[in-house]
Amino acid sequence: MQRIDLNSDIGESFGPWELGDDEALLRVITSANIACGMHAGDPGVMRRTVDAALAHGVAIGAHPGLPDLVGFGRRRMAITPQEAYDLVLYQVGALSAFVRTAGGQMQHVKPHGAFYNMAAKDAELADAIARAVCDISPELILFGLSGSELIAAGERAGLRTASEVFADRRYQPDGALAPRANGAGIIHDAEEVAQQVLRMMREGKVAAGDSTVEVKAETVCIHGDTPGAGDLARGLRERLEQEGVRVCALWTE
Amino acid sequence: MQRIDLNSDIGESFGPWELGDDEALLRVITSANIACGMHAGDPGVMRRTVDAALAHGVAIGAHPGLPDLVGFGRRRMAITPQEAYDLVLYQVGALSAFVRTAGGQMQHVKPHGAFYNMAAKDAELADAIARAVCDISPELILFGLSGSELIAAGERAGLRTASEVFADRRYQPDGALAPRANGAGIIHDAEEVAQQVLRMMREGKVAAGDSTVEVKAETVCIHGDTPGAGDLARGLRERLEQEGVRVCALWTE
Amino acid sequence: MQRIDLNSDIGESFGPWELGDDEALLRVITSANIACGMHAGDPGVMRRTVDAALAHGVAIGAHPGLPDLVGFGRRRMAITPQEAYDLVLYQVGALSAFVRTAGGQMQHVKPHGAFYNMAAKDAELADAIARAVCDISPELILFGLSGSELIAAGERAGLRTASEVFADRRYQPDGALAPRANGAGIIHDAEEVAQQVLRMMREGKVAAGDSTVEVKAETVCIHGDTPGAGDLARGLRERLEQEGVRVCALWTE
Amino acid sequence: MQRIDLNSDIGESFGPWELGDDEALLRVITSANIACGMHAGDPGVMRRTVDAALAHGVAIGAHPGLPDLVGFGRRRMAITPQEAYDLVLYQVGALSAFVRTAGGQMQHVKPHGAFYNMAAKDAELADAIARAVCDISPELILFGLSGSELIAAGERAGLRTASEVFADRRYQPDGALAPRANGAGIIHDAEEVAQQVLRMMREGKVAAGDSTVEVKAETVCIHGDTPGAGDLARGLRERLEQEGVRVCALWTE
Repeated sequence: MQRIDLNSDIGESFGPWELGDDEALLRVITSANIACGMHAGDPGVMRRTVDAALAHGVAIGAHPGLPDLVGFGRRRMAITPQEAYDLVLYQVGALSAFVRTAGGQMQHVKPHGAFYNMAAKDAELADAIARAVCDISPELILFGLSGSELIAAGERAGLRTASEVFADRRYQPDGALAPRANGAGIIHDAEEVAQQVLRMMREGKVAAGDSTVEVKAETVCIHGDTPGAGDLARGLRERLEQEGVRVCALWTE
Repeated sequence: MQRIDLNSDIGESFGPWELGDDEALLRVITSANIACGMHAGDPGVMRRTVDAALAHGVAIGAHPGLPDLVGFGRRRMAITPQEAYDLVLYQVGALSAFVRTAGGQMQHVKPHGAFYNMAAKDAELADAIARAVCDISPELILFGLSGSELIAAGERAGLRTASEVFADRRYQPDGALAPRANGAGIIHDAEEVAQQVLRMMREGKVAAGDSTVEVKAETVCIHGDTPGAGDLARGLRERLEQEGVRVCALWTE
Repeated sequence: MQRIDLNSDIGESFGPWELGDDEALLRVITSANIACGMHAGDPGVMRRTVDAALAHGVAIGAHPGLPDLVGFGRRRMAITPQEAYDLVLYQVGALSAFVRTAGGQMQHVKPHGAFYNMAAKDAELADAIARAVCDISPELILFGLSGSELIAAGERAGLRTASEVFADRRYQPDGALAPRANGAGIIHDAEEVAQQVLRMMREGKVAAGDSTVEVKAETVCIHGDTPGAGDLARGLRERLEQEGVRVCALWTE
Repeated sequence: MQRIDLNSDIGESFGPWELGDDEALLRVITSANIACGMHAGDPGVMRRTVDAALAHGVAIGAHPGLPDLVGFGRRRMAITPQEAYDLVLYQVGALSAFVRTAGGQMQHVKPHGAFYNMAAKDAELADAIARAVCDISPELILFGLSGSELIAAGERAGLRTASEVFADRRYQPDGALAPRANGAGIIHDAEEVAQQVLRMMREGKVAAGDSTVEVKAETVCIHGDTPGAGDLARGLRERLEQEGVRVCALWTE
């Protein structure tokens, strides 16, 4: 029986500002990537989000980002590997205080936004991130784009990794995601989303323009910052379960 | 044989800006209060400061502050007890990632600046801080002004506490510190500093204008942000040792 | 013929986070208080908000706040009068670059949140704010709570002032607003809102529990951060116009 | 008689942290680039720096940077031209409130750090910056690296520009500065510094490894963040005056 993890970025509110329908997503996903205060999230948001994830039985991961609140961590910044290492330690450490205090345990770490994209291509940066995660705990699972330098770095560091694929994003021939800015980069049709995920799971392939790209699908990212994200996620999960897929967190036996 | 802990605030640099002579202080003090990124300190500064403290065999504590970088955490802010709780968890969690990764262990927590002063008077805020420290680890020692609400809250929470006195600050009749802004609030003479500390240790008293105030001296704060702070600290330590005092961290047997 | 200005706080989005229905409010109000980056607003939000206000023919004011983004400028901070002066200069200066570049002119300045409340009671802080506004331009109108120290300070500085009343907030016997946290502090019924405003304009009085408080109503604040704020505002404006009130900005002849 | 402007970055302190010996530099330079709060500088620092520059008769310029305080604006960030435009408006506007209030006038704008370097190569970004400066006031002089896209953009926008050369930095064959990180990129010998400046002024050339690069020297940047910067600057100015050069601000007749 095939199994898959569904993950989503949550806890992205900040101060007076709310973002995303975390409650709806937590009813569907199996792993939650929780913002840690640099690109989104503040201490109060982090505590409430950790509590909500535990209440829903969703596995918790840290979602460290670049220190760019106004840019939501989506703008590339020329940080050094040492700075990347320090940013991961700081943010994962901060989140883990909330997780342990709430009686939980952290399952994984997934860099956010530009940090994730930079680590997908830059081996040195990826190694710094993987080393930080391993130094915090070798039990943590490192999430990275399937086929990326970050997955390779996680393996070099001796970490368990989870190759990530995207349910509603189109791929480019080199395995990167088509830009979001370009409307064509997003898949809106629910059945097309489900078919893309099923093909990635069964064949290890995804369409990329006229060609296909090989992918490994261990966890599927569901975006939470679009209207109707909760419905799209629930539809995908039901569709996968109809096809006999077991949807569960990665650390589940 | 009497014993005393000497503590100082260090790791208060930020980005390109340096503050304090941490190296000089680390050669003298026995407990270090390390800034956690809210009022000072950034992830790189925190890592380097933790490493330096461990290299000097100085016990490490977290020094959480109000989220007011430009005001250096010295301006009172009307935060709620819940916000205080969350701020402590976030900052202590972030620092502890650096401490554990470097192979160390955290000894204590001491709130910084206005956060410390507010917690000295406000029982509800003090309880929130003590509860946060206890939730992170009941082994942590809570530092607070001798006779303050923070010490009382630590005791209520079942924490080990360390009553703090100040070597070079004058006291007011109510046990609070005389304002720093007022030049008269600082003691500059080295022998007077030593005599104030010795009296606090031996008699449990300190002069406060024409009267005296009862204090409990378990740890002595040495300010690090004044020129010559390193020399003053070294002089005090030597003087105390001449008098037969054992200068050591609190968790030392 | 009686006249009144309707003002609202807008431009309170930040980075990826949206707040308030500025478009709906701009169709109703006559003066807009635009956030300047300290408690809300970022340079891009400020530019777009200025452009939108000018497009709707709404008079523009700066809405400087305390430097507390995560607290949305609603937490009191112990700043000095000099810091208050500098904060006003910085924020009004930043906004005025967008206003002048867009071909507009700034009508007024209204401090935000805790800054506004602190300036209502603290004469020294109020004088610093009034002096800053006057130093930028003696043509600017200073908004303050009716009967507050801020209005008195504006008069001392020789500025034109606008005494502000609140449409949907209940008053306390001392003229301060009943706390928002307390649900009873907000008036939800549209007709009751209109009657409170009309009475303040016609009689110079507002109910405060069992007694009444004297107020001067030159500009009415309409909150924008509650659901349905746009509808409530439009209803109030229509009701006032039915009663023969001329609703227009303050600098309108 | 040849003339030259000497400029330096000042006002780079922040909150409790001091940086640079602004007093020493202000006795030597003729144009000051003042930080505006994004990479350094806070409202209080800005006010005091403006006052000091005016007291020394030094021409004032805004020094807008990337929103990266911890990185001091030295890390490249992938901002859009629109974001660049908005950042310039915000920061120049904020500084100009202090300048006008103090009775002064702004002479120029010079982007800081990574913002300056990015604008030297990226025509689209450079155009956005030049347009922002021009929209604020077409009287402002735009400073940029000699031969850079920023100078070209300033000319396209119809602005007066000032081609900048560096006194104590080595050049690369493409006209860019040799990296600072590489120790060899800095010239420490005072006479060598003076000779480089004189050659740039007289021949329009500077050594770049084994070859030379053509430069236009209208303003010379003197770094203020190195120990002894004040002495180096004074020595250079005296040396230039001995050679008959008139050292004065750009807007001086």
